[in-house]
Amino acid sequence: MPPEPKPVPPDPAVRRLSLYLRELESLQRRGKSTISSRELGEVLNFTDAQIRKDFAYFGQFGHPGVGYRVEDLIGRLKHILGTDKTWDVVLVGAGNLGRALSSYRGFEQKGFRLKAIFDLDAKKVGQSISDLPIHAMKDLPAYAKQHGVKLAILAVPAEAAQDVADQLVDAGLTGILNFAPLKLNVPPKIAVTSVDLAVQLEQLVFQVNVGQQIAKAPATE
Amino acid sequence: MPPEPKPVPPDPAVRRLSLYLRELESLQRRGKSTISSRELGEVLNFTDAQIRKDFAYFGQFGHPGVGYRVEDLIGRLKHILGTDKTWDVVLVGAGNLGRALSSYRGFEQKGFRLKAIFDLDAKKVGQSISDLPIHAMKDLPAYAKQHGVKLAILAVPAEAAQDVADQLVDAGLTGILNFAPLKLNVPPKIAVTSVDLAVQLEQLVFQVNVGQQIAKAPATE
Repeated sequence: MPPEPKPVPPDPAVRRLSLYLRELESLQRRGKSTISSRELGEVLNFTDAQIRKDFAYFGQFGHPGVGYRVEDLIGRLKHILGTDKTWDVVLVGAGNLGRALSSYRGFEQKGFRLKAIFDLDAKKVGQSISDLPIHAMKDLPAYAKQHGVKLAILAVPAEAAQDVADQLVDAGLTGILNFAPLKLNVPPKIAVTSVDLAVQLEQLVFQVNVGQQIAKAPATE
Repeated sequence: MPPEPKPVPPDPAVRRLSLYLRELESLQRRGKSTISSRELGEVLNFTDAQIRKDFAYFGQFGHPGVGYRVEDLIGRLKHILGTDKTWDVVLVGAGNLGRALSSYRGFEQKGFRLKAIFDLDAKKVGQSISDLPIHAMKDLPAYAKQHGVKLAILAVPAEAAQDVADQLVDAGLTGILNFAPLKLNVPPKIAVTSVDLAVQLEQLVFQVNVGQQIAKAPATE
């Protein structure tokens, strides 16, 4: 009998794994070595049932009531997410956002190593940002092949983003973290995660408005 | 009889409103004036039932099968999200990320107006970024009160973020877009949306790995 196919975990459950991992790493830094799903839930405002359900997509985790070893759980979550090894990343776009991202320390803490920067602008080629030289976009395919790079951070203006994304796909990259405010058209096998900063602000405004409506609503209605 | 309380829409539905809005604005720029939920779903890889269900949280939208006027739908979604008016925003943190954000054109397109920049570093006060002067953090309460600013973008290092968030709350701000990689502790009435860039990259890696597993899985098992 072939094994039962595992259900594909829903995106929100995968996103919560990142949240759990971040909190566990923070707890570990503060010296905590074991934790129950209830304690973890209390810190993050989740029920313990929610946490156990999320974990269940990925196999057996510890024993209910006994708790988890923090170090083991961190290792397990990293393995599931794929960040238990170091990933090389290239950054495309050497503007302000690219500069900010190149000096963002959070990437390295998570096991991502920024290897090189590429830009369409010939005038920037040969300059450096954060000790990384800026390469010409045309050199990306050879670079990616030589160094086995699979991930790119796309920080170019919206009008250039689709064209650059096509070049990344042609160069054999399989994951794009997209900061341009548009939906990229890529083949289904290519993973894209988009960070649209204006959308984040829009979502914040909705929450601010909801908070005001709740504050204004008379208690008896 | 008091009216039935409306169910609070789940976060993912609210996030999808932003996605629908962005796509509709893009379709409008390309000259499209009417659309069905099915057409919108096809562009975004959602079922039309999903789209109608999401809209249903917010009232009656058009008539099934007849389609929506794109302009009306955009106006409606903006009204729900609260972006049918202009919101003033302050930016706290004048480092690389702050600089990148201050020149990010996407905010203005969505109706957000960056009014002023604040920084903890006295040496930066008086300098300008993108034609906006940098103010001292101590002047934020008076500024926010005078200009009625409710939203802040927090782009300071992780170790300063909680302290600055406390100051924002004390100054009467009610919404924080947080770029520091930590969970802010704020009163329940304060809305916080966090953008953790390393988490985005981590989620991308998971998608890349899933894609590889699917590609490797033999078809007969």
